[in-house]
Parts: sequence; structure tokens; C-alpha cells
Amino acid sequence: MSGRVVRDVKRAERTVVDGLAACGVATVHEAQGRTGLLDQYMRPIFPGARIAGSAVTISAPPGDNWMLHVAIEQLQEGDILVLAPTSPCVDGYFGDLLATSAMARGCRGLVINAGVRDVRDLTQMGFPVWSKAVFAQGTVKATLGSVNVPIVCAGAAILPGDVIVADDDGVCVVRQETAAKVLEKALVREKNEESKRSRLAAGELGLDIYDMRGKLEAMGLRYE
Amino acid sequence: MSGRVVRDVKRAERTVVDGLAACGVATVHEAQGRTGLLDQYMRPIFPGARIAGSAVTISAPPGDNWMLHVAIEQLQEGDILVLAPTSPCVDGYFGDLLATSAMARGCRGLVINAGVRDVRDLTQMGFPVWSKAVFAQGTVKATLGSVNVPIVCAGAAILPGDVIVADDDGVCVVRQETAAKVLEKALVREKNEESKRSRLAAGELGLDIYDMRGKLEAMGLRYE
Amino acid sequence: MSGRVVRDVKRAERTVVDGLAACGVATVHEAQGRTGLLDQYMRPIFPGARIAGSAVTISAPPGDNWMLHVAIEQLQEGDILVLAPTSPCVDGYFGDLLATSAMARGCRGLVINAGVRDVRDLTQMGFPVWSKAVFAQGTVKATLGSVNVPIVCAGAAILPGDVIVADDDGVCVVRQETAAKVLEKALVREKNEESKRSRLAAGELGLDIYDMRGKLEAMGLRYE
Amino acid sequence: MSGRVVRDVKRAERTVVDGLAACGVATVHEAQGRTGLLDQYMRPIFPGARIAGSAVTISAPPGDNWMLHVAIEQLQEGDILVLAPTSPCVDGYFGDLLATSAMARGCRGLVINAGVRDVRDLTQMGFPVWSKAVFAQGTVKATLGSVNVPIVCAGAAILPGDVIVADDDGVCVVRQETAAKVLEKALVREKNEESKRSRLAAGELGLDIYDMRGKLEAMGLRYE
Amino acid sequence: MSGRVVRDVKRAERTVVDGLAACGVATVHEAQGRTGLLDQYMRPIFPGARIAGSAVTISAPPGDNWMLHVAIEQLQEGDILVLAPTSPCVDGYFGDLLATSAMARGCRGLVINAGVRDVRDLTQMGFPVWSKAVFAQGTVKATLGSVNVPIVCAGAAILPGDVIVADDDGVCVVRQETAAKVLEKALVREKNEESKRSRLAAGELGLDIYDMRGKLEAMGLRYE
Amino acid sequence: MSGRVVRDVKRAERTVVDGLAACGVATVHEAQGRTGLLDQYMRPIFPGARIAGSAVTISAPPGDNWMLHVAIEQLQEGDILVLAPTSPCVDGYFGDLLATSAMARGCRGLVINAGVRDVRDLTQMGFPVWSKAVFAQGTVKATLGSVNVPIVCAGAAILPGDVIVADDDGVCVVRQETAAKVLEKALVREKNEESKRSRLAAGELGLDIYDMRGKLEAMGLRYE
Repeated sequence: MSGRVVRDVKRAERTVVDGLAACGVATVHEAQGRTGLLDQYMRPIFPGARIAGSAVTISAPPGDNWMLHVAIEQLQEGDILVLAPTSPCVDGYFGDLLATSAMARGCRGLVINAGVRDVRDLTQMGFPVWSKAVFAQGTVKATLGSVNVPIVCAGAAILPGDVIVADDDGVCVVRQETAAKVLEKALVREKNEESKRSRLAAGELGLDIYDMRGKLEAMGLRYE
Repeated sequence: MSGRVVRDVKRAERTVVDGLAACGVATVHEAQGRTGLLDQYMRPIFPGARIAGSAVTISAPPGDNWMLHVAIEQLQEGDILVLAPTSPCVDGYFGDLLATSAMARGCRGLVINAGVRDVRDLTQMGFPVWSKAVFAQGTVKATLGSVNVPIVCAGAAILPGDVIVADDDGVCVVRQETAAKVLEKALVREKNEESKRSRLAAGELGLDIYDMRGKLEAMGLRYE
Repeated sequence: MSGRVVRDVKRAERTVVDGLAACGVATVHEAQGRTGLLDQYMRPIFPGARIAGSAVTISAPPGDNWMLHVAIEQLQEGDILVLAPTSPCVDGYFGDLLATSAMARGCRGLVINAGVRDVRDLTQMGFPVWSKAVFAQGTVKATLGSVNVPIVCAGAAILPGDVIVADDDGVCVVRQETAAKVLEKALVREKNEESKRSRLAAGELGLDIYDMRGKLEAMGLRYE
Repeated sequence: MSGRVVRDVKRAERTVVDGLAACGVATVHEAQGRTGLLDQYMRPIFPGARIAGSAVTISAPPGDNWMLHVAIEQLQEGDILVLAPTSPCVDGYFGDLLATSAMARGCRGLVINAGVRDVRDLTQMGFPVWSKAVFAQGTVKATLGSVNVPIVCAGAAILPGDVIVADDDGVCVVRQETAAKVLEKALVREKNEESKRSRLAAGELGLDIYDMRGKLEAMGLRYE
Repeated sequence: MSGRVVRDVKRAERTVVDGLAACGVATVHEAQGRTGLLDQYMRPIFPGARIAGSAVTISAPPGDNWMLHVAIEQLQEGDILVLAPTSPCVDGYFGDLLATSAMARGCRGLVINAGVRDVRDLTQMGFPVWSKAVFAQGTVKATLGSVNVPIVCAGAAILPGDVIVADDDGVCVVRQETAAKVLEKALVREKNEESKRSRLAAGELGLDIYDMRGKLEAMGLRYE
Repeated sequence: MSGRVVRDVKRAERTVVDGLAACGVATVHEAQGRTGLLDQYMRPIFPGARIAGSAVTISAPPGDNWMLHVAIEQLQEGDILVLAPTSPCVDGYFGDLLATSAMARGCRGLVINAGVRDVRDLTQMGFPVWSKAVFAQGTVKATLGSVNVPIVCAGAAILPGDVIVADDDGVCVVRQETAAKVLEKALVREKNEESKRSRLAAGELGLDIYDMRGKLEAMGLRYE
């Protein structure tokens, strides 16, 4: 079942992708009905990055990073590499050389349910990675995997071309075909939050803004 | 048993609270006989914060952040929100909107045995959080919890009004009624450490400063 | 078996040690055949440090940091303290006072399969630590351990005088007697990587640089 | 996106399902190219069970077991309930009452990426469960989820009607439409293993049976 | 603060304690409003035990089991030992000798937020233990702790004399003064469950027994 | 460095090995000064086994069980296989076929810092395994490792020919050359415990048997 590289992958519109990046993971996740989050343990190697891009997916054997070389050829400007090992692994599949190559192809970052290394260099290069681990342990190039096939990465089903949004709060996947609609909802959400933010900053209470007092009382909340 | 909000909570003196903040967690913890530490997994969302404040406690259902709105109304200048879910949970109960509201009420930070989100915004706002997780996963507002009741948070029993001290080393709770006395001991400890620090910096050994050689020899330590 | 302090420990040449530091953990680890890595959970308390030094090893009882005082006397310029507790422990064995003392003796850092505290101070002092945990929990001084004996620390067997290399990717140990040879190989590796880096940055593919296409095809990789 | 119950789900042939059960997880997993395994932490509540059945899938909110009641109505003889919470959760969604109900509908077991309780009763009833946790913590019935929709459970993508195979080695999913073919391969594998087993039991070595000596020597294995 | 042994501890009525044991953890936990559960990682060393008893609490230093000897003298017929270390620890505090001694004093079991050893012997003796770990690592007798003081054990606040209920689902604490009332509610719950059980066994659905269909429809559940 | 098989390995006397098995892990560990324990997470696949044997060590690549075939040829009657992967791994390296082969060579069990599968069969065959995980995930045979070289397994340094003792409390290693001496001490310990056991069973207190009251009082223990 492995040993496949799918070349023709539909991506979402660049403006949609960039719009989702600007909204960030928490907002996008809410906007699509609280679905699509990767597991909580996926953490960025440095704080502050907020990106979105189209997924080039990789299914790789544990401890074997050969398919990353294959995947890099499939990258288009604005893509994100997304790697899931076929068995749990924390080895460092990816380092500064691969990042140099991926950046040269327009790649925006890496999401990997395994380890990454050379993180000092990656930080200096500004290449963001969300991973399960940071670990100097190297990998081999001995067994085939697949590129641009459906994968499950850190608990989320991801299809090639799906939009990946990632920031300090984690990583979220949006189906390519619903991305525009999710962006719309996310923007409405953001607008709505903006007005709330200024009222809250002025000292108004959420209890009043969201009109919660009646419902809380009805449910039996009592003040002592 | 839930559905209670206690309004009248005694706080420690502001100067005592601020004094404890200046001492930091490790010193305060030692000063009160190595008690009161929350579990080790409670980590700050950004480095360098060192705060203390009076606890407004929250017992919340898993995945339900309704009580945070209720608790914010109970905040006084200098307080810290402390939330414990009633079942293990890493969902992101708290984000930038709630932080905006809490800051408007004078809140100094949040200690939460669960998840937090919008950490990029929280970092920019300078609102410190100690949590079990960072996770974009949202919560609902469907079930009552309680505010300002005794809770167990990350392994420590916390009463409303207790002083919470938090920095990069973790989080410590000091009973409101013993806070002044603990501060006294902490200050003695700090003074004592100061003189030790300069001697150690000058190259003197702890073995000599603390007069350990005899005891070590008596216990059988042998040099080869 | 405990209660021993070995004084005469052979160190590797300073230039070799410093050369290994410059190469970093991932390269050194590869250069010695992917051996010597400590467990992945050993993480630095602040990002960006990259050091190497000769190991002064410490076998310590859980929750007892007495032997650190003994070990500090054995430090020479350029050494690194390496502590392994005899039972799993996350207590904070080490803080700013011990760091002051160690720095005064020329110590370059600490590797500890347990906890550390005062990390804000340690960060300000620029004293790097790789640890299993950050935790304010203090320790006692009641039981003997040993200094400069063989230990297993975070999954790696370490002998006194071995070279420890540590950076953001983790910690690696190099036997004192093979250090020069490992450095040689690491430098060859680095040089080799340099030329690869510029080709990759120019957009050439690893598939071509490493001549992988034929082998991938032979193993059955198919493009769709 | 939640609030859906799909009624018409195609199941695999009963004889195929039962054949897969007899082969067990390790063999089935190998037979389909080492794919389909759920995460390693999914463990049986009692040893010795080996079952297969058609998946009735459940996507449930954290700490809310309402959808289990809805799912039980969809059960057919020979089915297995498969529940994935939408956020990490160890609460006990399922106990002896639900098991009584499920057994009355012909259900063969439960696979749940969360907690289970009443395990003493479940053991006495002989109702097997594979779960992430055993925990008495109860759940509520307040929010909708979905039944018989595609889910990701413990790292594996599962479709309604897929065959679930579970035993002491873990849990594996086989697509409904490939189940017959996977069974064929599994049976070949079993037969092949049988002959190997008797030769190995007689003291022959795998090195000889699998003719490995030449390849090992070619790769450089040396005996000292 | 340590070094205290409280002798006069009020216990709940034996019949109440035994009644709670018969109900089991899940039922008792529900009966008192889903409070009082210890953390999920507390697991029995052998399956099938179901006990209740009055807590003799122990606050012990990490890796030091001295206070167990002190606590055993305080045991009365029907008590359960409950030990919490003051810092995380998996060492084996308790083995067959201490169990022999505790059983001779009428002790019904041990709940320990740390490790236990000699589990083969303890199983043969039928002495049940709920622990965080099984580990042969021994402990010392060097530092004081306290007996029969309030503790936090595995996330639950426990007072001396509280009723501890433990079975395969975990461990629950019931305040001594509310134990009779909780038992009453638990018995009502059990009775109620009994009638449900027979209806469910006969094939009736929870959807109908609990009259859920209308509410589900109102919330938007749709069948496809 | 890998690719080595050492054939000439000195074993301890069979009577010594069997004596250590009879003493069990906790006693042996104490008898050699609380050293040699493997990490706590190493657990038996079924309860009740208690064995000892001479270590045939295996250093294996992650997810590659080729070296097990090589190691089995090196087995002598009374040996135990001990496998450490060179990077963290939970794959199932070992199943019923390999167990059949190992048993035919007189092997007493397996200690593996990785996964095992076919545990139902292994249990029926009575072949004991201590492992980090149970997992159906298979392995490949593609890369060399080494047999009978020094390894670090689950935190303990193990040499070929060392005595491995394993039971429900965990796994302990005893150096081959000190095994006889450790056995002596263990037997003394056992004898000593025997007399204690009967006194404790008769209701005498450890406080009195070990004469602890004076020391406790001197350290400040106070009864209230």
C-alpha cells in the first residue's frame, strides 16, 4: 500500500489560505464547529509563528526520512509538509538541510508527528515546525512510504491539499473544499470578538454582555 | 454540591502578597517547610513572569468555562484566578477575551489545571498563565461549577483568598492567615542566601561554608 | 557501593572539547555512529545554548543534593556536572547558589536527570542546564552518593571525563578516548554538509544531489 | 457537523468477520500491509478476549455519553461499538447498564478512546472493552454527537461498517470492502507460520529457516 | 509542619462503611455528586477487590517509609492506610512485611500515591493495594512525616477518618460525617439501576426507558 | 559500531542464578545496595512469573528485529534475552514464533525495552516477558545491530552474562562476577525477614521490633 506519490493535488486559493493564517488556529477551529484539531502534544519549536498552507502529506516508516526528499519535489509555493510515521517515533526526521531545500521550494513550515532536530538553525532560519518532539536522533533511508495520500497525523485525518493552520495554540486542518466557507465564518467571528474585546477592556462583564445572569440563576447558581 | 459563589473572601495584606512575589516560588516554598507546591507539570506560557495574588478559586466541569465569567465578577485588584476541572481536561478554557476582562478587573494572572489558548495574544498582553497544557480546543457553557470554594488544583489544596505565588519554577500556595509569617521567614532566607552567594562567587566551597566535611567523613565518604 | 569520590579523572583535550561544541549534538551523534544520545526528555532551560565539557559525574539519592557540593570541589575549568538520581525524581536539586559556586570553578553547565529550580536566575546568569524537569521542590542533605563514578544518566552510560555535548537538540556523550577521532569525523561531515546546503538553497533537489531516483524506482516507488 | 445518525451501513460478511477474529490482531495487521492499528495505549479490561465485529462508530463530546444510547439502537448482531471523544477524555462513558443493553442487541464489545467503568461487572458479564483508561468518573447527557460517521479513534481512521479486530495485542481496523481479501492473506500467513512453528520448536534456527546467514554476512555482521 | 501523629480520629459506623463497599466506587461517586475521586492512574495490584474502610492518613517524604511503621500502630479494625508523598515518587514504600503487620491490626488495604512492591506476595495474601506504580525500588527511614493529618492524595483532599472506597474502577473518598447520607443515596441509586438492568437486558432501549427521543429531536438530532 | 556478535560469554553458576530467582527482585535489589533496577515501566505480560537467567544482550535498531534471530543462536540453557532499541520504540519485536524458537534453546524469558505481541499465545506457552509495551505493530529485518555487547536497557547498564532477575516487582541486573556474593546477602536478608514476619503476624509492631520509638522521639515526633 505504500510506495505511492500522487502528483496532482488540488490546493485552496492562496487568499483563502492566507486569510485563515491571519485568523489563527483557535478562531478557525471554532469557525468549523470545533473539528480538525491535531493532538495537544504538537508544539512549535519557537514561539510566535502563525502560518497556513496546503498540505503535502507524507506517510513514513518509523525512523526513516527518505520520503521527505520525495515530498520536497512535490512542494509548491505556499505548501506545508505534514508527516505521520506509521508507528510511534520521536526520531529527528528533519533538520536544517531539509529545511533549506524546502524553503527553496516555497515551503512555509513542517507539521510532524515525530521528532525534529537542528532546531537552533531552524529558529535562525525562521522555518517553523510543529512536532511531537525535539531530538537529535537521526533516521535512515531504507524503506518506502507514500506522498500525498490520506494520512492520520496526531489524531486528525488529513488529505493532500487540505489547509493546515498552525500557531502557538496548536495545529488545525481545514478541508480544501470548505476552506473558503470556513474563512467566512472565521472573519465573522473575529469581527464579533472585536466589539466584545473593547467592552470587556472597559470593565463590562461577560455576565452582562452575553446576558448570562438569568440562565445561571435558572440553573440554580446561588451567591453566598 | 456545585452552583455556589462565595462573595466574602478575606485576602492577605497587599504588601505581604507583593513581598512574597518578590521572593519567588522556591524561596517561599522553603520558607513554609516545603509545602504547598502545585504539581510539576504546571508551566508558564512565557518565561520570566513572577507574580503573587489572592486566589479566586473555580471548580469547573471538564470542557466548560462558564464559571470563569462568574468568577471574573468576584475579582478584586491583585487577585489571581485558580481553576481546577472536576475531571482531567486539557481543553483551552481561557483566551484573550477573558484575559482582557480579567485584566480590566485588576487580575494578575491565571493558574489552571487544564488548557489555555490564544497564548500569542496573552503573551503580547503580558497576562501570565500557568497551565497543564496549551490547546486551541474550545469549551462550552452548559453546566454549573462553583466559585470561591475550597479546591484541589494540581495536587495542592487551595482555599479562596490564599496567596498564590508563581514564577518559572512553578506555583506555590500560602494560606492567607500564615502569609505574613511565611514572608518573614522568606526574607530571612533571602538575606542569608545573599551572603552565601558572594562567598560562593568568590570561589569558596559549599563544603566549607556549610561546614560539611566532617559530617561527610563521619558518614563514610572516601576520596580515591 | 556509594560514598566514593574519584579525584583523578582524565579529561579530553580542551581544543577537542571546544571543537565538538561547535559541531553541535546532531552532527556529533551522527559522527560517532548514532550512539551516545541521552533520552529525548532532557531539555534545556533556555534556548540557544550550545556547549561541550568534561563530565564530572554524580550518582545521587532521590531528593538529596548533598553530593553536588562534593562534586563542585572536583570541577576543573571546562567541566560539566552530570547528575543521575538512583531512583526517578523531579525535585529541584540545583539552583542559583550552586550555579554561582559551579561557575566560580569554571563549570560550563549541568546535565541532570531530575529537576532544577531558580531557572529565571540561571537564565540571567547564562548558566545552561539540561534537565528532566523544572520544579521548585527542594532537596535534603542526608545520604551519601558518589562522584566521578560510572553512571547511567537518561539512558546513556557516562564515565567521568567523557565529553558531554549539549544544545537545543539534546545531549550526547562521547568517550574521552575517542573524542578526537569523533571530532575529525564530525568536521568532515560538516564540510560535506556545507556544499550540500548551498546546492539545496539554490533549488536543487536532494533526490538529485544524493542520486536517489534510481534506487527509489527500483524499490517500486510509483508516481500517479 | 454533529447531530447525525446514519442508519444504512454496509457490514462485511459474518464469516469473514469471524475468520478475522480467529486470526487475531497481529496476523491481520501484517496481512494488510501493517496498516490500521489503533494506538498502543488501547488496552483490554481483561486478558484473553479475541473478537471481531462491524463498527458502529460514535463521535461524542468529552464527558458526554448521550450518543451511546443513540448508537445502541443502531446495533446489529455481531457489531462492535467504537467511540472517539472530540477532545481528550478519560471519563467512564460506559458501564454495566449500557453493556447489558448492548449485549441484548448482539454487540460483541466496545472500543473507546476514553474511559470505562464497572469493569468488575463487565468482566463477570464477559463483555470485552478496549479503552484508554479505567475510571469511575461519570459523564453527562447534554450535547449531541454523531453515530455512524467517519471518525479518527486512537490514531486510526474508522468508517462505519469497517471490521474491528481486537485482542490482547491491541485493536486493528479493516475496511469493510477489503475484509475478505485481507482474511485470505491472513489465512495464508497463518498456514505458513504453522510449518515454521514446528521447525522452530524442534530446534531449527530462524537464521537457517529464513536463510539469513548470507545476507547478514554480506551486510557485515561479524562473529567474535 | 511534619512530625505529628494524631491519635483521636473519629471513624464512620462500620455498617455504613461496609454498605459503601458493597455499592462500589462508581455508584458512591455518583451518589455524592461526582466528587471525591482520586486520579485515574491509581490502579489495583490485582483485579476483583472491592473494599471500604476508614482512612489512616500518612504524609511521607519521597522515598522514605518510616511513617508507615508509625501509622500501623494507629490502625483499628476496618481501617485503610492512605499515603501521599510530599514530592512525586514511585519507590516501593510497602511490601509483604508491612502488609503482614497491617493485616494483623485489621487493616483492609492500602491506597498509595507512590509505588508498592512484593506484589506477588501481597496478591497471595489477599491484601489489596491501589497505587501509582509497582516498583522494587526500596526506601529509607530517615525523615519524619505525619500521621492522621489532612492530605492531598492523587488529587483528592482526604481527612483522617474519611471513608475510602476502592475497587477496579478506582478510589473514592467520602467525608466521615456525610458517609451515612451518601450510603442512603447510593442504595436508592442501586435499586433504581436494578429495574433498569432487567428492562435493558430484555432488549428495551435506553432511548425509551429514559424517554430521550423528544429531547434529542428538539436539539436537532437527525437520522439519515 | 554495530554488526558485532560476541560468542564467548561467561555465565554465572546455575545454582547461583536459580538461588537469585528464588529470592526475587526486591530482595536481590536490596542485597546489592539498591542498585541494578531497570526502569519502573518494565512490566510483565502476565502476573506471577519469577525467573532469573544469564543475559544474552541485543542492541537493535528501532522497529527492526533481525538481531533476535542472531541472538537466539547464542542462547544457552538458562539464558534470558535482553533487548534495547537504539531509539525509543514500542513496536512488537517478539511474538510466539520467536518464543517457540527461544524456548527450544532453553531460554527462560525476554526483557525488552520496546513492545511485544502475541501475548495471548506467550501466556499460554508460559513464556514470560517484561516489556515497555504490548503492541501488534510489526518490525522489519533490514539493519544490523549487535549481540552480546554492553547495553543500557531501561536505565540499567547490562553486560552479556550478567544475571537478570525478574518478577512482578520489575527487573534487576546483577553483575556475573558478584552474583554469588549477592545471593549470599540475599539469603541472609530472607532469613532475617522470616523471623520478622512471624512476629509482625502475631501483632508486634515494627516500632518495637526495629526499636524505632526512641529515635522518632529524638527527631521530634509528637503524638496529639
